[in-house]
Amino acid sequence: MKKLINRPEHVVVQALAGLAAAHPDHLRVRTGPRYVVRADAPAPGKVGLVSGGGSGHEPMHGGFVGMGMLDAACPGEVFTSPTPIQILAATKAVDGGAGVLYIVKNYTGDILNFRMAAELAKAENIDVEAVVIDDDVAVRDSLYTAGRRGVGTTVLAEKICGAAAEQRRSLREVAEVGRAVNASGRSMGMALSSCTVPAAGQPTFDLGPADMEIGVGIHGEPGRERLVTAPARDVVLMLATPIVADLPFRAGDKVLAFVNGMGGTPLIELYIIYHELGRFLLERGIQVTRNLIGPYITSLDMQGCSITLLKLDDELTSLWDAPVNTPGLRWGA
Amino acid sequence: MKKLINRPEHVVVQALAGLAAAHPDHLRVRTGPRYVVRADAPAPGKVGLVSGGGSGHEPMHGGFVGMGMLDAACPGEVFTSPTPIQILAATKAVDGGAGVLYIVKNYTGDILNFRMAAELAKAENIDVEAVVIDDDVAVRDSLYTAGRRGVGTTVLAEKICGAAAEQRRSLREVAEVGRAVNASGRSMGMALSSCTVPAAGQPTFDLGPADMEIGVGIHGEPGRERLVTAPARDVVLMLATPIVADLPFRAGDKVLAFVNGMGGTPLIELYIIYHELGRFLLERGIQVTRNLIGPYITSLDMQGCSITLLKLDDELTSLWDAPVNTPGLRWGA
Repeated sequence: MKKLINRPEHVVVQALAGLAAAHPDHLRVRTGPRYVVRADAPAPGKVGLVSGGGSGHEPMHGGFVGMGMLDAACPGEVFTSPTPIQILAATKAVDGGAGVLYIVKNYTGDILNFRMAAELAKAENIDVEAVVIDDDVAVRDSLYTAGRRGVGTTVLAEKICGAAAEQRRSLREVAEVGRAVNASGRSMGMALSSCTVPAAGQPTFDLGPADMEIGVGIHGEPGRERLVTAPARDVVLMLATPIVADLPFRAGDKVLAFVNGMGGTPLIELYIIYHELGRFLLERGIQVTRNLIGPYITSLDMQGCSITLLKLDDELTSLWDAPVNTPGLRWGA
Repeated sequence: MKKLINRPEHVVVQALAGLAAAHPDHLRVRTGPRYVVRADAPAPGKVGLVSGGGSGHEPMHGGFVGMGMLDAACPGEVFTSPTPIQILAATKAVDGGAGVLYIVKNYTGDILNFRMAAELAKAENIDVEAVVIDDDVAVRDSLYTAGRRGVGTTVLAEKICGAAAEQRRSLREVAEVGRAVNASGRSMGMALSSCTVPAAGQPTFDLGPADMEIGVGIHGEPGRERLVTAPARDVVLMLATPIVADLPFRAGDKVLAFVNGMGGTPLIELYIIYHELGRFLLERGIQVTRNLIGPYITSLDMQGCSITLLKLDDELTSLWDAPVNTPGLRWGA
């Protein structure tokens, strides 16, 4: 295992220490229980946004804590759900009296623990709603999931709900925005190599030197099929065709096109994928009006990419464009 | 070779097509000769900033074209210098009457071709100055270099000179700022794996399953020594000790600490490196007042990192903080 780490059991805590040291203007990292929280939390009268999940997907979620995005993130160990106690502590820290919205990726452990935290928070008179992201069209039911997995749309939901919360919309309204994002977003990923979980020390799955996995999950869960590696154009066809068919996206639709790197794939390749995706969508009359390209929801050191399309209306576009100031996503602020 | 590309010979042109398609608000990609240029170039009365070099280091340089940073970037083929003709064309495109500054990494081909372009530009009555970046403390003379290689400080020089140019400082003044950055910046890198040049199809160098290369260049040039992989803390010690000794950086100095990913290393590891670097500098009384963490000057899919320290005064700090709006670096605008 080749990684820039110290001991595997210290990966999460030391990466969080680095995050905290680097971004004191944005956030704090609390321990016992552990969560990342906006430096200026709670914001009175603002809905608090909390997300979280296993670590290994950086910059998601801790890197998205800051103005215009999350109020807190609850990091579990690598690929391990955060506990209800972590989530409850984060909830209390960000509650500014307007309630707290959870953005939860659809993994069984995350769903259970965020649900339990919501019950504990309600017992303390904090109003909580949850939005579940289940945008991965690759498979139905998977290693850690009943139904569809939550992947790239999570990043977009965190940004867009963050903007809605900054406008001081109500908890119900921000949750509604989050559900609209999930309803309008579809994703699919692929891997050229497996990730290696530090504590395991070995690749999560075996992939031959000429093979790729189409439809892979962000924890290396199996996808739709294992194929011989193919040109970028064919990879885009394999990912974007089921995405477009699923919603469906139609000629005339405006979309945000998000090309995500899995952690081990450099930007030069992601731009080639974006180039091919643009071509694919143009042929179908689908108009890309916004984009995001880079490693935003990663799977440790996995080589590969995912594509997310989000159907945009004026409302979602305007929330996307609103200022954001986090370590991982920053503009106009 | 596992890469998200089509044909190896189309990697650069298709990645640039993706860049152009993604960022029409920031930049255009011109062909014949090829360069990336700000959408609003030339800016009358502003010094034009031009950089460039081989491709494979994305987002550098094309991703740094935009407000507050470069006016143009000249991409060569992968790890291949751009031609004087490309550089001349970019120079003419960005000359707003205040002259043009070249920011050149110290590689023999780059130096020769930027020098030739400068002569051609002067023959067309464009005032040109050049700043050479040679900040890599690892080795003196290398595969493509006489003297020290230019690495991470290049990113910082492009940002800081960009801010000075936006303030409408003169060509001499912006060049002076660039030289001050180079004089105050020192870097060193390491690799856990080799990059693979698409046209070669094979790793550039062999590195055993338990080995790392300390002092590696951004094209996979040999470094100082090949060692058994070590914990992040030891890696930081090996990189930061020669950096600090070289300038030297002293107790009481304020620095920008830049932890750069080589392309195949995920953010979670870079934050661990940043955590260890913070500890290292704290022990020596060196104060980190600004930072940058992420893959900004990459080496294709190489796993590894580099550390750059830039000694800051009030002037450089204020130029660093100025708004920037490029695909690869964006804040306050």
